[in-house]
Amino acid sequence: MRPSNREKAQLRDVSFEMGAIKNAEGSCMAKFGDTHVLCTASVEDRVPPFLRNSGQGWVTAEYGMLPRSTNSRMRREAREGKQSGRTQEIQRLVGRSLRAVVDMGQLGERQIVVDCDVIQADGGTRTAAITGGWLALYECVEFLRSTELIKSNPITDHVAAISCGIYAGAAVLDLDYAEDSSAETDANFVMTGAGGLVEIQATAEQDPFSESQFSELLGLAKDGIAQLVQMQKAAIA
Amino acid sequence: MRPSNREKAQLRDVSFEMGAIKNAEGSCMAKFGDTHVLCTASVEDRVPPFLRNSGQGWVTAEYGMLPRSTNSRMRREAREGKQSGRTQEIQRLVGRSLRAVVDMGQLGERQIVVDCDVIQADGGTRTAAITGGWLALYECVEFLRSTELIKSNPITDHVAAISCGIYAGAAVLDLDYAEDSSAETDANFVMTGAGGLVEIQATAEQDPFSESQFSELLGLAKDGIAQLVQMQKAAIA
Amino acid sequence: MRPSNREKAQLRDVSFEMGAIKNAEGSCMAKFGDTHVLCTASVEDRVPPFLRNSGQGWVTAEYGMLPRSTNSRMRREAREGKQSGRTQEIQRLVGRSLRAVVDMGQLGERQIVVDCDVIQADGGTRTAAITGGWLALYECVEFLRSTELIKSNPITDHVAAISCGIYAGAAVLDLDYAEDSSAETDANFVMTGAGGLVEIQATAEQDPFSESQFSELLGLAKDGIAQLVQMQKAAIA
Amino acid sequence: MRPSNREKAQLRDVSFEMGAIKNAEGSCMAKFGDTHVLCTASVEDRVPPFLRNSGQGWVTAEYGMLPRSTNSRMRREAREGKQSGRTQEIQRLVGRSLRAVVDMGQLGERQIVVDCDVIQADGGTRTAAITGGWLALYECVEFLRSTELIKSNPITDHVAAISCGIYAGAAVLDLDYAEDSSAETDANFVMTGAGGLVEIQATAEQDPFSESQFSELLGLAKDGIAQLVQMQKAAIA
Amino acid sequence: MRPSNREKAQLRDVSFEMGAIKNAEGSCMAKFGDTHVLCTASVEDRVPPFLRNSGQGWVTAEYGMLPRSTNSRMRREAREGKQSGRTQEIQRLVGRSLRAVVDMGQLGERQIVVDCDVIQADGGTRTAAITGGWLALYECVEFLRSTELIKSNPITDHVAAISCGIYAGAAVLDLDYAEDSSAETDANFVMTGAGGLVEIQATAEQDPFSESQFSELLGLAKDGIAQLVQMQKAAIA
Amino acid sequence: MRPSNREKAQLRDVSFEMGAIKNAEGSCMAKFGDTHVLCTASVEDRVPPFLRNSGQGWVTAEYGMLPRSTNSRMRREAREGKQSGRTQEIQRLVGRSLRAVVDMGQLGERQIVVDCDVIQADGGTRTAAITGGWLALYECVEFLRSTELIKSNPITDHVAAISCGIYAGAAVLDLDYAEDSSAETDANFVMTGAGGLVEIQATAEQDPFSESQFSELLGLAKDGIAQLVQMQKAAIA
Repeated sequence: MRPSNREKAQLRDVSFEMGAIKNAEGSCMAKFGDTHVLCTASVEDRVPPFLRNSGQGWVTAEYGMLPRSTNSRMRREAREGKQSGRTQEIQRLVGRSLRAVVDMGQLGERQIVVDCDVIQADGGTRTAAITGGWLALYECVEFLRSTELIKSNPITDHVAAISCGIYAGAAVLDLDYAEDSSAETDANFVMTGAGGLVEIQATAEQDPFSESQFSELLGLAKDGIAQLVQMQKAAIA
Repeated sequence: MRPSNREKAQLRDVSFEMGAIKNAEGSCMAKFGDTHVLCTASVEDRVPPFLRNSGQGWVTAEYGMLPRSTNSRMRREAREGKQSGRTQEIQRLVGRSLRAVVDMGQLGERQIVVDCDVIQADGGTRTAAITGGWLALYECVEFLRSTELIKSNPITDHVAAISCGIYAGAAVLDLDYAEDSSAETDANFVMTGAGGLVEIQATAEQDPFSESQFSELLGLAKDGIAQLVQMQKAAIA
Repeated sequence: MRPSNREKAQLRDVSFEMGAIKNAEGSCMAKFGDTHVLCTASVEDRVPPFLRNSGQGWVTAEYGMLPRSTNSRMRREAREGKQSGRTQEIQRLVGRSLRAVVDMGQLGERQIVVDCDVIQADGGTRTAAITGGWLALYECVEFLRSTELIKSNPITDHVAAISCGIYAGAAVLDLDYAEDSSAETDANFVMTGAGGLVEIQATAEQDPFSESQFSELLGLAKDGIAQLVQMQKAAIA
Repeated sequence: MRPSNREKAQLRDVSFEMGAIKNAEGSCMAKFGDTHVLCTASVEDRVPPFLRNSGQGWVTAEYGMLPRSTNSRMRREAREGKQSGRTQEIQRLVGRSLRAVVDMGQLGERQIVVDCDVIQADGGTRTAAITGGWLALYECVEFLRSTELIKSNPITDHVAAISCGIYAGAAVLDLDYAEDSSAETDANFVMTGAGGLVEIQATAEQDPFSESQFSELLGLAKDGIAQLVQMQKAAIA
Repeated sequence: MRPSNREKAQLRDVSFEMGAIKNAEGSCMAKFGDTHVLCTASVEDRVPPFLRNSGQGWVTAEYGMLPRSTNSRMRREAREGKQSGRTQEIQRLVGRSLRAVVDMGQLGERQIVVDCDVIQADGGTRTAAITGGWLALYECVEFLRSTELIKSNPITDHVAAISCGIYAGAAVLDLDYAEDSSAETDANFVMTGAGGLVEIQATAEQDPFSESQFSELLGLAKDGIAQLVQMQKAAIA
Repeated sequence: MRPSNREKAQLRDVSFEMGAIKNAEGSCMAKFGDTHVLCTASVEDRVPPFLRNSGQGWVTAEYGMLPRSTNSRMRREAREGKQSGRTQEIQRLVGRSLRAVVDMGQLGERQIVVDCDVIQADGGTRTAAITGGWLALYECVEFLRSTELIKSNPITDHVAAISCGIYAGAAVLDLDYAEDSSAETDANFVMTGAGGLVEIQATAEQDPFSESQFSELLGLAKDGIAQLVQMQKAAIA
């Protein structure tokens, strides 16, 4: 039995609120149960140094958690004076995942920054950030196209992500915090709308896992991500 | 004429959503028009060094802005590696204002941290943080009282805050960003429910201001804060 | 009775030593009793990024305290690796106050940095920094005019500052440390030579203060600042 | 054809020099072709705060690259004032991987720090760090056992790691820099001596990868890691 | 000819103002011509970790320059977020030099911090800091002895320092900035009252120097330091 | 008797392995007994700001210690977020020493960075860094000459360094850690191939030292450095 009484292959209630922030070119509040991540996409007229005068654009991501998004208050990274290793790992993952479905030549020499800020956390914040981040990015690109700053669509496909894990000996989809904190194995999958794999991260939290266990997790992820892609399509329809 | 067509002494639409974050002991989403500040209050079983073994408690505040809460994206302070001078100034002000209405002996040797995070900004974030922060603090103290961790109420009064300014030559209440960015004088007032003054900060942005102009601003603030205190009372009723 | 036996409206012994540092374009050692603040003004041939190619100049300020300027030794900020929130608050205040009386177009595209370093502290360092900083700035501008780098005087008026407070129930002028550390209310006023208000900062350290108390403080400040402006005039005569 | 003319499933020349540093309780210079990583293991009589008085030990890792280990000189992280996101990601991975095969209760309340410093880099530094780090850890534990500081062996199994990737359309084992920098997909696998999976990290660098491609990579990794475990056994024989 | 018209073996005008800061247990304003260094000594009831419960005391030093002590304004280290390599080198030298003449057992388990802050710089700030720092330390120790916190005198001898250099081909004593900035060789000597050598630092700024040149510099330093020790004796008489 | 049974004027076994790192333009592993320092020289097509458009080049050095190069593990400076004062002092010394024998006009407007990383430490790391750093620099310059990037040799002479000290009352050459940690006086000498003095640093660790003791140390250093220069010549032959 899962703490939330969900079926093994059942997602939490997922919703995407487009246009959540008035000021941003693109934004989406992504909710996976009690995990709420606010994603915004901002256009900047500059690119990282290695792309200057290349005609190519760039997509990058930043990630943060509000101090009391979590059960016990976390220290504020701005006050600590640095981002934790975990934060950097996640924002690098989100950026890589989004770049996998963007044609940088079509984007033109500009950068889109996708900020993913966790307002409330209950497990699965990085996968919510990727899935919601794609929607913010999409809205931002539509804005650029409406202003004719870019001609053709640089977004080549959907990208979405979900966590899976071995919990109480069974493979389950979309871990919440109660499951995540005692899972034997924890995995995150990022896939495109066409079903291509973009990133796999699987970690044994206790005993090592087997190939067949990994296959089960991958199977769950494929179904879950297919559902998320459908929800993304509904959100931008 | 104000950009928002409000009367000179008219507040924006103000709302307080109590219990906005499930994880926190106290929380409130304070909205002043398009300015949205999420305030949470967290209990910690420790106090600053100068209070150890004193039996006295402490209330402190931290402030942050999401990078895209603003019209053009701000750099993330956690990435910059430090909080700006403005951020520190504001969080010191919020902490002082809240402490003005708390009896630290009644609180017991524990600290309450009030985090004020700006989700969307349209002027007046610091005054919204104080006004909403008091509500989060109140909810947190009620939680402590419900668990009988504290016996009597350490909160001695309401505290609320509002900005005023000289805009296009006239004194107006509750500046939004359009007004704030071109005001001749900008002032913030913090007052208690009983009408006592807790903090005044008035700054000439262009020409110096006169005593009579200042009196007008103070008059507007007194009326505005009285309304905010009534709304606080409704929110906790 | 005040600890120093001064009258309620009596300033401490104030002196301004012009040209205190040989190397600087302008300098002044400002002494308010045992509070000694060394102010220097330095010309730089660059302006902040937002003013580049604008033809406009800029005036900014930095503030520091020597570690043993205080009764018990403070940690050296350079060693701590950051300026405290208090330091940043003060240097922002000094910069704003000085800019209020400078015509940036007349200054030309250059920056004047006013450094205010507390050699010995006995309360009122920020107001001494503003009052002495104006004198260093004046001397620096005279130097620029003597070299014909600037033609007409960009300084439009005097600016000076003083603290007031409610001490032992009474409104008093120019708090020293003994008063400041136990004052019920603490306020700083910045005004021009013409009597215009540039900045008001008033804080209840214990109980809230009333409008009439605030009026008393403002009255004391007006008289005190008028005296300081006379002393500034004498110093540059 | 691979740039190094190796077969698809062929490791580079691998060697492990035990006792490479006289001062350390355990050390190993791990060479995978031109990738040379110096691993040392140090005993500390303290544990992280969350383990104090638990009787449990801890194993952690740190990672660094000498500035000129790489083709073009990298900036020295100690001078930059922070470890990069990549560095932190790698040292977290190395620590997790080693902890997967240590019984913390048997270790006793002490910490072993495994430092992995890249002397020369030619791809695959993180997997060399894990594989060589296990050997340094082993030597360190043997030292502790020889001094009878610990009674029974806390190391429960071998752990080793290797990279694989899709290079020029084909799945290949143990990427060197020439391959790594143009691979379509890059994956790192960490496994135990018993063949259990400890960590999988797979990333599409260009197009998404398929399940069957991933299976090929996993197959290569299993064989490669089995060889590395045999070499570890030889090194400690 | 020296720019200042001094003889080769002639010191600048040197003066020591004892008790320069009211708040400190010991203080001295040391002036070597236009080089003015304010030295204070502060007692702290703690020692560095390696001395806890040893019964031994410690003497340490910190060094700083006011931003406009120099000809062109230096950046404020507190704002830069770190002390420069030069600053750290100097404060380590000052600390070592003072510790050479203190019996740490007699001092008792407490620390004296000697802060040396350059108010105005014209060459030779580090040697002025050592020479003046000894006087501040002496005054501080006298204070501790007057309060009977320490019984016997922990100061075993004087210590003083001077710079010498090869300027325009000739060995000269006590370089000012005009000489220092074009000297071929620059050396600093620290000696005790009894004539023992505590520290020698000699650096070829252009061509290497010879043994005989070095001997000349050492000879000048011995005479200069003997004069400084006499002046220290007069200052504390 | 010296702990190592060496004669007073006897160097440890010294060796220089040229070309120790494949990736670098110049490299040398310098071993003085158990002290092993890896020196690399890297060419950069930029110079410090003060040399831009001057046609002059620059040589600079950086220094680091692997955390477990020492007997007890040191904290990693990259993790601490800053280089220690000792580290900065040493890298400044190495840079100055190397620059003393380079004609910056012949080098052209480029910078050579010499990285000196201590792999294993047993005293005398800074002098090994200078002596080995010169060899890395030499190899790098030969590479530049072979590519005809520079025409004539900018290296004007050898430079080498050695430590000496008063150990158990006697002057000895080339201190190892056992001697260094209990020496009464510790000195480092840097000299050219022609016998010119580049830098002298002598410090009394316990009692002050005398002129005649210093002369003995200098005598030992001259002989030791002459031997090191011969070994450098052999290494590049």
